[in-house]
Amino acid sequence: MSLEKIYSFIDAHASAFIGDLVKLVRQPSVSAKGEGIEDCATLVEDMMREIGLSTKILRGERGHPVVYGEIKSKKTAKTLLFYNHYDVQPPEPLEEWKYGPFSGEIADGKVYGRGAVDNKGNLVSRLKAVQAYMKTVGEVPVNVKFVVDGEEEIGSPNLEPIVKKYRQLFSADAAIWEFGGTDRHERPNLYLGLKGVLSVELRAKCALKDVHSANAPLIPNAAWRLVWALNTLKDENEKILIEGLYDNVLPPTSEEIECLKNIPSEEEALKKELGLKQFLKGLSGVEALKALLFQPTCTINGLQSGYTGRGSKTVLPREAMAKLDFRLVPNQKPDEIFEKLVKHLRARGFGDIEIIRYGSTEPVKTPISDPFVSLVAKTAEKVYGKKAVIYPLSAGSGPMHLFRNLLGYPVVSAGCGHPESNNHAPNENLKIESFIKGVKFVAALISDFAS
Amino acid sequence: MSLEKIYSFIDAHASAFIGDLVKLVRQPSVSAKGEGIEDCATLVEDMMREIGLSTKILRGERGHPVVYGEIKSKKTAKTLLFYNHYDVQPPEPLEEWKYGPFSGEIADGKVYGRGAVDNKGNLVSRLKAVQAYMKTVGEVPVNVKFVVDGEEEIGSPNLEPIVKKYRQLFSADAAIWEFGGTDRHERPNLYLGLKGVLSVELRAKCALKDVHSANAPLIPNAAWRLVWALNTLKDENEKILIEGLYDNVLPPTSEEIECLKNIPSEEEALKKELGLKQFLKGLSGVEALKALLFQPTCTINGLQSGYTGRGSKTVLPREAMAKLDFRLVPNQKPDEIFEKLVKHLRARGFGDIEIIRYGSTEPVKTPISDPFVSLVAKTAEKVYGKKAVIYPLSAGSGPMHLFRNLLGYPVVSAGCGHPESNNHAPNENLKIESFIKGVKFVAALISDFAS
Repeated sequence: MSLEKIYSFIDAHASAFIGDLVKLVRQPSVSAKGEGIEDCATLVEDMMREIGLSTKILRGERGHPVVYGEIKSKKTAKTLLFYNHYDVQPPEPLEEWKYGPFSGEIADGKVYGRGAVDNKGNLVSRLKAVQAYMKTVGEVPVNVKFVVDGEEEIGSPNLEPIVKKYRQLFSADAAIWEFGGTDRHERPNLYLGLKGVLSVELRAKCALKDVHSANAPLIPNAAWRLVWALNTLKDENEKILIEGLYDNVLPPTSEEIECLKNIPSEEEALKKELGLKQFLKGLSGVEALKALLFQPTCTINGLQSGYTGRGSKTVLPREAMAKLDFRLVPNQKPDEIFEKLVKHLRARGFGDIEIIRYGSTEPVKTPISDPFVSLVAKTAEKVYGKKAVIYPLSAGSGPMHLFRNLLGYPVVSAGCGHPESNNHAPNENLKIESFIKGVKFVAALISDFAS
Repeated sequence: MSLEKIYSFIDAHASAFIGDLVKLVRQPSVSAKGEGIEDCATLVEDMMREIGLSTKILRGERGHPVVYGEIKSKKTAKTLLFYNHYDVQPPEPLEEWKYGPFSGEIADGKVYGRGAVDNKGNLVSRLKAVQAYMKTVGEVPVNVKFVVDGEEEIGSPNLEPIVKKYRQLFSADAAIWEFGGTDRHERPNLYLGLKGVLSVELRAKCALKDVHSANAPLIPNAAWRLVWALNTLKDENEKILIEGLYDNVLPPTSEEIECLKNIPSEEEALKKELGLKQFLKGLSGVEALKALLFQPTCTINGLQSGYTGRGSKTVLPREAMAKLDFRLVPNQKPDEIFEKLVKHLRARGFGDIEIIRYGSTEPVKTPISDPFVSLVAKTAEKVYGKKAVIYPLSAGSGPMHLFRNLLGYPVVSAGCGHPESNNHAPNENLKIESFIKGVKFVAALISDFAS
């Protein structure tokens, strides 16, 4: 089987492939608002069927459907699974977009739109690689499965029961995760794991009503209660003060530290973009990467209490709210951290503060020594012409643990993004060149995985 | 001169007086929004002229006009000044009003509307007392002056230059302040001073953009900076930690403490209304009053940062904001406290936090021993049939120091409010009975002050 023939097909059909991506970008599918979800799931299923996959819409007791597709090989029992998602982040702030966020506008050699990369671009690059096989070779050399989530951008809160219910459909020998791309040096980046996350909200409630601030000597103030409670969680040196929080933190292995040394520094560019003189605690180089990937965090995402309009108002607020997320590293567990948070607040005299638990995912990683890692790295080097940069973990999160830990196969994240793709931000875009290269990478990967 | 004759006139003209109050309530005059200000000032001026006062509209370089009115006595050089304001608090939340906030609806023996008591009811009660003199006796027994502020509800930021510019107009022998009324035991309450206030906003700014919270190990978080900075300002025992903040605090005199002992407790009613088991630090009785009136405070009025919508969002906020007010007691000064706050934050390593200064007023009091205090107390007892309750200070604030300290005469606050009048809240109302009694009280006061 000649990859050359497949590559030629991909080049010859680039416009049609991009047309299909644009069609998918034009279908809004904002999971946070439930906007366009069912229509987008249908569109993805249709696209799979056209290529020749057999499909299923998988539904749990609640939440958005998962679109499942598979195509069997006559030659082998080996299975490669692709995890993607058809849902997208909300496009706001709308006024900052050059083109409509669901316009799929093509300009400057790029497709613009929410989801152009994350994750519709990646999904289509993978589907089109399969299509190229079917149209040239007439079959795929391995079994290929697609799991296309509809709730990734809201933390995949309903995926676990679906994975458990349809366990057989999700079985595979290895999986490619949804994201990835090249860096500023055009080197392909691979990610072998994800940090976990636990999101919570703290609510302080004091009096039944807001009162005039003249009453401050007598009436408890919810905003102060919240500030004092938050202050017990993390000190000014970024040390998290919750008892036992660091108990299960695995330090990076020497092999992982070697990996970090190979990651090209993008520090200066990031500092410049954010207007920072230095990173927290003056971190730099491998130490910065170690902190980024192997340290748990406790982050305030939002604060609200009382009067927040113009000027001043002499009010004493009855309620105050903070949203926080904890990024977790192997082997921390969200349940464990939540319990430790509850216990901590109680022990520090803040048992009156209500704690609401939102989504969580577990930290997860595939070891560098796994043969699938070398396979993906070699394919990437071959296709991109540069040595792959291996991240032992990504600082982001997702439901990878359901595949890696529950189902037990290696998972590597690699995709067709690029540094200016603006994921989660206005003017998200995918370079057509990166997209086409991404289709070829997936085709090569299927070939290498089969042999 | 017979007060009986004046009282009879007041009773006979109650409906017309209430009609004038309703007319004034129907004219919106929300200083915070600049709504209806000039129209309301004109209406007040017209009302004064009809009674026979000579009037002036006093304007500073900026801000809303002060309506000034005076009427001279042929018999004496003694002058009594009334400080009132024609501006009102914003009426929001509108959905909680039984009647439109500017409807002036009469129901259950009450006039409903924003400003019905605070401060249009008090203003009209005083004007009508003068009118009763003019219509019965044909003259007033002392010189009477009215200073009607247009910015009291926003902290009278522009009154000082007007007082200095028109110093002669503001000269008097004594003044009656804008507010007051009877308590749940129907005892008239008198206030001999006000706490001061200093309002500020703290703004923490870190990166140039909000970033994904995955970056938390490297990128400074404005919400955390703000929480840590706020935590240095006050501890969990309500002690303010700013160096030197308590330096100029005068403890209450033994005479003032005696006063506090005479104040009937309304603790249980307040605790019940607010759903509190106890006040801060378990304070009660005279100790609660001492804290309320003689302790400075540091209150968070509002907090805002990052994502505050539904559910969770993994964002690391670039900005965070807190609004605070400090209530000041004699002899603290707003300038002094502001400087100490700036110095404190700098010394504690929070020099990066921007401090915006909003309005401020000075703490002020008239001594209990001042003869004007006994005069007002005696008149109140005579009219209300119960011994007046004397508050050496009110926990609220206002520009009283311009009169008491700058111009040097005694000031006592006494008015026609009642416990259910809902000042600053929805369904503000004035009992017609309280209003009419208030007109009589002012008439009696003018009489007693003259003799």
